[in-house]
Amino acid sequence: MQTILWVVALCGLLALVYAMWATRSVLAADQGSARMQEIAGAIREGAQAYLARQYTTIAIVGVVVFALTWLLLSLYAAAGFAIGAILSGLAGFIGMNVSVRANVRTAQAAARSLGAGLGVAFKSGAITGMLVAGLALLGVTLYFLALTAWFGFEPADRTVIDALVSLGFGASLISIFARLGGGIFTKGADVGGDLVGKVEAGIPEDDPRNPATIADNVGDNVGDCAGMAADLFETYAVTVVATMVLGAIFFAGSTVIESVMIYPLAICGACIITSIIGTFFVRLGANGSIMGALYKGLWVTTLLSIVGLAAATWATVGFGDVGQSSAGITINGLNLFICGIVGLAVTGLIVWITEYYTGIGFRPVRSISEASVSGHGTNVIQGLAVSLEATALPTIVIVAGIISTYQLAGLYGTGIAVTAMLGVAGMIVALDAFGPVTDNAGGIAEMAGLPADVRRSTDALDAVGNTTKAVTKGYAIGSAGLGALVLFAAYNYDLQFFIQQADAGNGFEYFRGVQPDFALTNPYVVVGLLLGGLIPFLFGGIAMTAVGRAASSVVEEVRRQFREKPGIMAGTERPDYARAVDLLTKAAIKEMIVPSLLPVLAPIVVYFAVYLISDKSQAFSAVGAMLLGVIVTGIFVAISMTSGGGAWDNAKKSFEDGFVDAAGVRHMKGSDAHKASVTGDTVGDPYKDTAGPAVNPAIKITNIVALLLLAVLAHQ
Amino acid sequence: MQTILWVVALCGLLALVYAMWATRSVLAADQGSARMQEIAGAIREGAQAYLARQYTTIAIVGVVVFALTWLLLSLYAAAGFAIGAILSGLAGFIGMNVSVRANVRTAQAAARSLGAGLGVAFKSGAITGMLVAGLALLGVTLYFLALTAWFGFEPADRTVIDALVSLGFGASLISIFARLGGGIFTKGADVGGDLVGKVEAGIPEDDPRNPATIADNVGDNVGDCAGMAADLFETYAVTVVATMVLGAIFFAGSTVIESVMIYPLAICGACIITSIIGTFFVRLGANGSIMGALYKGLWVTTLLSIVGLAAATWATVGFGDVGQSSAGITINGLNLFICGIVGLAVTGLIVWITEYYTGIGFRPVRSISEASVSGHGTNVIQGLAVSLEATALPTIVIVAGIISTYQLAGLYGTGIAVTAMLGVAGMIVALDAFGPVTDNAGGIAEMAGLPADVRRSTDALDAVGNTTKAVTKGYAIGSAGLGALVLFAAYNYDLQFFIQQADAGNGFEYFRGVQPDFALTNPYVVVGLLLGGLIPFLFGGIAMTAVGRAASSVVEEVRRQFREKPGIMAGTERPDYARAVDLLTKAAIKEMIVPSLLPVLAPIVVYFAVYLISDKSQAFSAVGAMLLGVIVTGIFVAISMTSGGGAWDNAKKSFEDGFVDAAGVRHMKGSDAHKASVTGDTVGDPYKDTAGPAVNPAIKITNIVALLLLAVLAHQ
Repeated sequence: MQTILWVVALCGLLALVYAMWATRSVLAADQGSARMQEIAGAIREGAQAYLARQYTTIAIVGVVVFALTWLLLSLYAAAGFAIGAILSGLAGFIGMNVSVRANVRTAQAAARSLGAGLGVAFKSGAITGMLVAGLALLGVTLYFLALTAWFGFEPADRTVIDALVSLGFGASLISIFARLGGGIFTKGADVGGDLVGKVEAGIPEDDPRNPATIADNVGDNVGDCAGMAADLFETYAVTVVATMVLGAIFFAGSTVIESVMIYPLAICGACIITSIIGTFFVRLGANGSIMGALYKGLWVTTLLSIVGLAAATWATVGFGDVGQSSAGITINGLNLFICGIVGLAVTGLIVWITEYYTGIGFRPVRSISEASVSGHGTNVIQGLAVSLEATALPTIVIVAGIISTYQLAGLYGTGIAVTAMLGVAGMIVALDAFGPVTDNAGGIAEMAGLPADVRRSTDALDAVGNTTKAVTKGYAIGSAGLGALVLFAAYNYDLQFFIQQADAGNGFEYFRGVQPDFALTNPYVVVGLLLGGLIPFLFGGIAMTAVGRAASSVVEEVRRQFREKPGIMAGTERPDYARAVDLLTKAAIKEMIVPSLLPVLAPIVVYFAVYLISDKSQAFSAVGAMLLGVIVTGIFVAISMTSGGGAWDNAKKSFEDGFVDAAGVRHMKGSDAHKASVTGDTVGDPYKDTAGPAVNPAIKITNIVALLLLAVLAHQ
Repeated sequence: MQTILWVVALCGLLALVYAMWATRSVLAADQGSARMQEIAGAIREGAQAYLARQYTTIAIVGVVVFALTWLLLSLYAAAGFAIGAILSGLAGFIGMNVSVRANVRTAQAAARSLGAGLGVAFKSGAITGMLVAGLALLGVTLYFLALTAWFGFEPADRTVIDALVSLGFGASLISIFARLGGGIFTKGADVGGDLVGKVEAGIPEDDPRNPATIADNVGDNVGDCAGMAADLFETYAVTVVATMVLGAIFFAGSTVIESVMIYPLAICGACIITSIIGTFFVRLGANGSIMGALYKGLWVTTLLSIVGLAAATWATVGFGDVGQSSAGITINGLNLFICGIVGLAVTGLIVWITEYYTGIGFRPVRSISEASVSGHGTNVIQGLAVSLEATALPTIVIVAGIISTYQLAGLYGTGIAVTAMLGVAGMIVALDAFGPVTDNAGGIAEMAGLPADVRRSTDALDAVGNTTKAVTKGYAIGSAGLGALVLFAAYNYDLQFFIQQADAGNGFEYFRGVQPDFALTNPYVVVGLLLGGLIPFLFGGIAMTAVGRAASSVVEEVRRQFREKPGIMAGTERPDYARAVDLLTKAAIKEMIVPSLLPVLAPIVVYFAVYLISDKSQAFSAVGAMLLGVIVTGIFVAISMTSGGGAWDNAKKSFEDGFVDAAGVRHMKGSDAHKASVTGDTVGDPYKDTAGPAVNPAIKITNIVALLLLAVLAHQ
């Protein structure tokens, strides 16, 4: 089995090698004119300054948590936390550093041809994608190897499990800060810059006279690239860890325990290879369809992953009977393989549904464009209607996924399905991380005054980026929905384990006599569901307010610069870009703290509050219910926000080539209908890029903290 | 015990007597000029035409359901269904007929003084309030009396329980149609009329040249008066019935069963008396505060209700030990009394929180006004942020209510708390139903060209109406949240009862061997939670789309009239008001069908789908979880929509007297900031008056249908 682990580690390493090769290839591309390099330099500086500040702040929190983990659990757990946190930060950091170098090269390549622009941008995205998957897999695999092979722990030893969960916690903590901080920065810049630039001053987007324009481009990198990378790193690590933990629990004491713990790692290893192969299929075809080129890569990856799944199954658990899980279900390798395919199918369906709800040319976006004709209000009403409706099909897909995998192989089967889903994360992240690069490339083209057809190429790339960004978010939250059961099960079985051991006199005294009751008939379960359900709403509200505040401070700063430097509008004076970046950096860092702590502290507060009112048993029941409550509302809040926001954005874009309404009238850019669509886009911005995507790490962190709470209490 | 039932019936009757007295008093008031009467006549005609059509449509559905209920259950159940449906319809019908007569009299009285205007408007609201409470209480009490005293059934006989649940179902079915149909009508008229009138033609609200203006006033009556009355009737009836059913289940076979079943009725009877007394305290004080006058009535009612609660407790269960419930908790009369007080406290707290989130002068509304200064987009962003945040405190209050009542007296205690909450519904509805009357009065004053100070008085009354409307919605959904457990418990214990009887060989063969598992560890429970959680989102999305569509058709119609009758704008030609009313009537009736059926059919579809995939036990588990799922998301969706919408509305109103922003600049009506606030108000309209409030009946109807499903399966 150790051999397999080494092979998996090799796969992770291969992802890093790919990333290095691709980085070299991107950096070798032409950087364009001096003006372009100057602009790109400003973006790079701003992004690096922001990230340095963000990581410093997180590091302070991280050191405290590291010390607490060491104190309350063990050095192994603390080390796990550090590994998760550092690797997650690293993936975002390197990815963003490539991204801020790829933007100007994409602009230059797009001047040659659309295909060349796509090539550079996608390669840059693929670097982030492979770093996310590769580093996450390497981290989990090597730490697991270290703990079992070098430190000699049994695979299912509590120390190993605590250490792996802590690794997930490290990733989650980075992720929530990065998602929120980056989200507030990017949308504060975007909304604020648009309001004062487009609306007040009447200058186009990315106009170099707008002092917020560099900040806007910085935001794309720190939010949509680094923030998203941290989010997916976390989703990947937490899912793999949770499935491994579930395997350890279900097959406790069995001989197959090692295989079932390694199986998820093997799947991820195989899928990294298929993702790397997939990237080579992303090439503009004869029809010139960018989406088509991207999808070609995705479908190749998905289909090859079925083969990869088969290989992983064959190498670990085999296709025959694996054994009986402690839940009393006989688990069969073939069924597990089918569960993996279900995970891939869920990925495909969610991609397809998200594209329907956010893509130009389908009913939902058209209905928003149409509603814009009657004004701002109806645009927003229809956008909200679409956002609410967009939750239905993904929910049904997730429900179907839960039921089918559970029927096939119990909860472990569901875990395998989510693992397979996340296995192709490298490819999905590549599709997403290419977005901010093209967005930036467009900005650079605009600011450097490149010919209009360059901007046209980058705009075409950017429009596709809107949809792929929505797709990634749908995918991340979809995996969270499907993974809900796995995380809750990990909590439940962990709790049961401690109680059994305590009642048998094997330590864990804290849990002696505890009898959790997770039935819906228990009022504390209802209370837990309601309090958990509150988190995404409250969290979303705070995040939206934060963006509003950040945007207002940008508006004031830009107005001040216009007032104090009248030469800016005339083009004779240069705006002070750095001040806007600096101001947003401070605002974003300050605003991200409180909402990030909400899901971290919520399970702890609920546990002790219910403990005081009632007893330990009810406290554990309420916390358990809270974990499901946060998912039950979180999935709807996240999908509605990300899909709705994407639809609003593309409804706005539909006016750029002229939107023909039901009465046959064509509405062009600059028309009243277009202005109304800009309002919807502004509303959708924090919806889809700040509040919505941050719900995903909020769900995970609540779950992980609850697992750690159990571990800490067990140490008392 | 029969004596008590007769006394309760007498209390219900007293409410009707009060309504008759108040109606006579309202009708005796001066009707104003011929022009005013003409306008009021048009509104009355439109409202009556709409309601006639709506009731005809519902009647068709009702006859089918009546037949089905008879066929699948019994004539008693079918009769219960008819009683619930007819009385609910009657409360809305009479209330609205008074309301469309009170509007013009309020306008005329407001010409005399603010106090006189308030007097007429509030009295009209109180009529609807007393009709809702009186008819609901009379219906339940007399039918219960008839079944037990005349037809000789035991109070806890299945026939009695099925008949009472069917009564609740009848009320629910009317309620969801009335809320949705009325909501689509009123907001279609409001949004459509504003868009084409205020925005395109540049004429003020309620301008007689706008062909949609009569429809807008009709909408206030059919949506905010008749629709709301049906909703509260349903909430009242369902809560009382559910608490009675819970009493019957908990004390099955005990001698106290009759007292615990009558206790909720006695509470409601006592609270009707205190509500009637309270109405006499609503009088404008020396400070001229309208809200103060209304609150005086509410606080008097609430405080007196504590006395009423004590009397009801003394007369039925007494203050000593009541006995041991089947759940194994010893229930004590004093504790039940305290539970009732908790219910009143929850009402007070929710009123207070809702006022904070929707009232002018507090942080939330100020923040939206402030955000309007930067534009349409930021107004909507901040409004959404407020709407999300507004869910937090009510949830915590509800959670505290659940925990404290459960600790005091188990689930039956929670039921008593909700009953006490609903007991004061007469007063709460009075506060709400006065809103549309003043809104209409303002419209009539505008159209009839009354002096500006009359409009100022009616505007002052209307602003308060915005908050009281939000308060009622918060109250209704809050009671649903607290009642969640009661409804789920009724389902669970009903199911247990059937299973026990079946396993003991006492019939109900369908349930033999069924073993539902409501633990969160059961994937079908998670699936049920997710599918239930989807309902409010999907339902909300469909309702918002429907309003958008109805509004668009109004826009087209008004544009057509302006085009074909150029004399309208010059004031030489009269617009065709009736056509707009007729068009909206058709649109609203058509659009209300599909979303209304969603919560009705959902539990049935889920039951049979899961049955096919798995088995009966899991099907019952999934449906049970669905009942909680719909509440867990529904409560957040409903509170966020109703509070957010109210806040947007009042943020707009804050510009009417000039809003001073953080920089000290005053923004008046007509400023850009005011225009941005109008966008938010437009978005908030369907949020707060269509989708949000309709979530409450959607929650209830899902629960009631599940209870009926059990009853029907038991009859197989």
